Amino acid sequence: MFTDKLIDRIISLRNHCIVGIDPSYNIIPDFLKEKYLGRNDGNIDDLTEMLYEFCIHIIDNVYDIVPAIKPQIAFFEKYGSKGLKALEEVCRYAKKKELMVIADIKRGDIGSTCEAYAEYYFGNDEWSLDCDAVTVNPYMGSDSIIPFIDKCLEQDKGIFILVKTSNKSSIEIQDLICEGKKVYEHVADLVINLGKDYVGQRGYSFVGAVVGGTFKEEGENLRKRLKNCYFLVPGYGAQGAVASDLSGYFNQDGLGAIINSSRGIIGAYQLEKYRYDFDQMSYGAAARKAVLDMRDEINMYLELNGKLAW
Amino acid sequence: MFTDKLIDRIISLRNHCIVGIDPSYNIIPDFLKEKYLGRNDGNIDDLTEMLYEFCIHIIDNVYDIVPAIKPQIAFFEKYGSKGLKALEEVCRYAKKKELMVIADIKRGDIGSTCEAYAEYYFGNDEWSLDCDAVTVNPYMGSDSIIPFIDKCLEQDKGIFILVKTSNKSSIEIQDLICEGKKVYEHVADLVINLGKDYVGQRGYSFVGAVVGGTFKEEGENLRKRLKNCYFLVPGYGAQGAVASDLSGYFNQDGLGAIINSSRGIIGAYQLEKYRYDFDQMSYGAAARKAVLDMRDEINMYLELNGKLAW
Repeated sequence: MFTDKLIDRIISLRNHCIVGIDPSYNIIPDFLKEKYLGRNDGNIDDLTEMLYEFCIHIIDNVYDIVPAIKPQIAFFEKYGSKGLKALEEVCRYAKKKELMVIADIKRGDIGSTCEAYAEYYFGNDEWSLDCDAVTVNPYMGSDSIIPFIDKCLEQDKGIFILVKTSNKSSIEIQDLICEGKKVYEHVADLVINLGKDYVGQRGYSFVGAVVGGTFKEEGENLRKRLKNCYFLVPGYGAQGAVASDLSGYFNQDGLGAIINSSRGIIGAYQLEKYRYDFDQMSYGAAARKAVLDMRDEINMYLELNGKLAW
Repeated sequence: MFTDKLIDRIISLRNHCIVGIDPSYNIIPDFLKEKYLGRNDGNIDDLTEMLYEFCIHIIDNVYDIVPAIKPQIAFFEKYGSKGLKALEEVCRYAKKKELMVIADIKRGDIGSTCEAYAEYYFGNDEWSLDCDAVTVNPYMGSDSIIPFIDKCLEQDKGIFILVKTSNKSSIEIQDLICEGKKVYEHVADLVINLGKDYVGQRGYSFVGAVVGGTFKEEGENLRKRLKNCYFLVPGYGAQGAVASDLSGYFNQDGLGAIINSSRGIIGAYQLEKYRYDFDQMSYGAAARKAVLDMRDEINMYLELNGKLAW
């Protein structure tokens, strides 16, 4: 079962952090740009090979210390079919390294359309991505989520439904108050209903929730509301969430959340904190150091709050 | 401007209907399956070449009578990078035929992630899709829409924001009542705000709305609320919306909505109504006939309601 497997990895690595693979152009080190693109802008094959090398080097530097990576599909889809091919190879490589892959796709559509998405992301044909989990958008309601759940049952996968996202304008729709509850709390209830029959041995359903790390109070309230639900928490680092705010996203068993950082890890070599110790050639080593620092910081606050799972 | 161009095409063709390119496996005629896949399930190249031939033949049969096609990306993404390559070729072909392309992607993400999507769908690099418009999911708020709008301004494109979708469970989130208005009405207000500065010569903004044809009353109310907004109306045919219900989705100028049918057109050869006149080899001719019937039916009700734009 997806959540049981995820929790096993978290406990054996003593790490709740996952690495967001968001390879925007600005985050790629200059020496790689020079290698692949030379003095011009490069052609599409050069661009996507560069993307591939960048991601593989990140994976090589973190695969043995994080439970999962979270590729953001947009940065591959940006380059169309060639970009998607690079993503397919990155996912295959991650799998070989026994990393779990959570594809950040935020898809949401109905019926056979939703099934078609599920077949690509969860299928095991030679051409499908065969990820461990995906993120899903709830605006269209359960019609747009159930086909993913059916495929999870068939292929032993998981989903994280967007509940409360980390961005500022998430309040515009998600925080509207409807019949005494905010919209995102209604979505949280939907998550409970959709996931309640799929709780694994560790007590967590494979129907999880995306809960932004930038809204501490909302995160803590959702934690109380969604006991059996694993949280995928974006917003750490670049978006402003800090470790001291996140203990409340975990249950008393010291489990219940994976914390994602993207730019803070894969672009660590560019940050004030790391750039004196790591040059651009060492972007992989910088990423590894940033993961270890993040892991330790989150674990420290969990320990202070009596929430260590090991 | 996107909406002006769309309206010019609608008026010159006297047709408000667009063709949804949703090539699910079940809709592909058996003779094509035999041609490409033979006795086995085919490999990925055979599958995607079959997809391509199917779509091209549909386009050849409708390009001169409809203003636009609406490919549903999931049915291409299902086959990963190879599927996306087929979509890229289909879009290139449609463009050559001077058809407008509205990519049904329902993406929604923030900041640089959203920009990455916009670059693929609206960009004009050799590898990008260069569509005329896309559909967008509003759950994450304006952060997740503005990067698309910025790209629309740069590349002369349009978007349709999901307001009230045609599926049954759309009520779960979209119909919650918040401070006297339903969630989808709040989204409608967001559509107005985001689009009000981008109204073209014909009186319509390039920020449009997806309004399901299966909810007549809601559609008519939204029409009154969103005067300058073009509607993309799914749900015709297979999902249950009928022509007599749709006049209220148009303004008094006889404009304001494009009506999409997918299975009812591209799978017309399978329907009771057409299968005696068209065999599977004639799926293109059946699609053409179904478009003409749909066009005439919608125009008839518009005329009855004094809403003919020509």
